[in-house]
Amino acid sequence: MVQEQQQERINGLDMAGFRAAVAEIAQNPDAVHNTRRARVRWMGGFKFSTLVRNHTFIVDEPATLTGEDAGPSPMEYIIGTLGACLAIGFVLNASKQGIAIRNMEVTLEGDQMNHLRFLGLSEEGHPGFERITAKLFVQADADEPVLRAIWEHTVATSPVGNTLTHVVPITPDIAVFP
Amino acid sequence: MVQEQQQERINGLDMAGFRAAVAEIAQNPDAVHNTRRARVRWMGGFKFSTLVRNHTFIVDEPATLTGEDAGPSPMEYIIGTLGACLAIGFVLNASKQGIAIRNMEVTLEGDQMNHLRFLGLSEEGHPGFERITAKLFVQADADEPVLRAIWEHTVATSPVGNTLTHVVPITPDIAVFP
Repeated sequence: MVQEQQQERINGLDMAGFRAAVAEIAQNPDAVHNTRRARVRWMGGFKFSTLVRNHTFIVDEPATLTGEDAGPSPMEYIIGTLGACLAIGFVLNASKQGIAIRNMEVTLEGDQMNHLRFLGLSEEGHPGFERITAKLFVQADADEPVLRAIWEHTVATSPVGNTLTHVVPITPDIAVFP
Repeated sequence: MVQEQQQERINGLDMAGFRAAVAEIAQNPDAVHNTRRARVRWMGGFKFSTLVRNHTFIVDEPATLTGEDAGPSPMEYIIGTLGACLAIGFVLNASKQGIAIRNMEVTLEGDQMNHLRFLGLSEEGHPGFERITAKLFVQADADEPVLRAIWEHTVATSPVGNTLTHVVPITPDIAVFP
């Protein structure tokens, strides 16, 4: 019986383990502050190997920009990762309410209004995303208003979402070697 | 001789091809506006397959949050991708000036000051990155002031960089299926 409780699963998640992990974070005052690190190694041309913790992923530009298209471009990673962060948040928030999800997909559309500045073709505007739409397609054991409220809460509390909806200053530093 | 010019390469880039690609974009008024799309498919738990154009990448949460750690977490993708975008921009801007790069690496450090809100442990603050440092380590055929100016220009004109340093509104939408 105790073992069954420990193995309580919903949406593929070990909820007892999840609650224990959250409780441990809640008891640790240092956990409020989180520093993340990455390292990017040049592979020639526009191709880079990006290292985060124990993972590696390849970033490149498509052939239209004379890249080798060995992986998604940076802006493709950004919009896809936003979708994954929102999707993870929806699974987390629905699971906490005991709602079983049968199927889900998130589609994203992001507008770059003036990407020419990156190429040196314009001195004005900014070349990043100016607005993004994130649409959830879902089949789950709850009514539409409940699922809509969870989705809107998820977008409002998403780490990647908040990184995009807030101004995040970037400080450049450099070390030149002979 | 013509063929040699066409094959002019620096830093692994076909510069004649690059200039031709940029000239084609400059002649196309529609090119100022760019829409990017992504699709995120659920694989169970916190694991998602993210599709952009012809590429796929896996996003997951680490075991500390009861994920399977099948890939980087969303915030790890964001900081690593910022680094790759800045690195690509540096190669592009240095190559346009004819500067040969012998070796380069970018390290990133991003601070989440209150990531607890994502877990429902706090009602205040935002759980995204609040500030990021991006450091370039480089060996190249140019003096430090030149390389520093290129790096600072690169950070200021980066598509991912500008996505982070500006407010990007995210509009949630939902479709519920029975």
